[in-house]
Amino acid sequence: MNARKKPLPNARERIAANLKRLRKERGWSQEFMAEAADFHRTYVSQLERCITNISIDGLEQLALALGVDITDLLAEPNE
Amino acid sequence: MNARKKPLPNARERIAANLKRLRKERGWSQEFMAEAADFHRTYVSQLERCITNISIDGLEQLALALGVDITDLLAEPNE
Repeated sequence: MNARKKPLPNARERIAANLKRLRKERGWSQEFMAEAADFHRTYVSQLERCITNISIDGLEQLALALGVDITDLLAEPNE
Repeated sequence: MNARKKPLPNARERIAANLKRLRKERGWSQEFMAEAADFHRTYVSQLERCITNISIDGLEQLALALGVDITDLLAEPNE
């Protein structure tokens, strides 16, 4: 199971970029975004800095709060 | 942070359905799939039964082993 702990930055970077873009489009601060998704207030900052290995349930919760599909958070940022 | 532990079955169900389809297309057993992704041998079975809240790094590792994009594991199964 150790390999699951390896940093695999690509998906984290996609989430960070998409989250930041979607959040800013809504004019939401990191703290407001965190509150909307029922996360700790520092968690969105951690996600945007790629330092958190979010779970799939957490990612779905974030998508629901943003009103997007979960795949929108994982799309290639330049698509 | 409690809310992140709530069951949000939709994303888990998508992963389960896509994983099962992609694995079977390759003729791989659950155990072979687990070995290819460097997971514990029972982990793929757990994912296909929606009982595991996989992390984004784990999901990326699974996508790499299957040779697909991570979004392919989260696409609506009937798309």
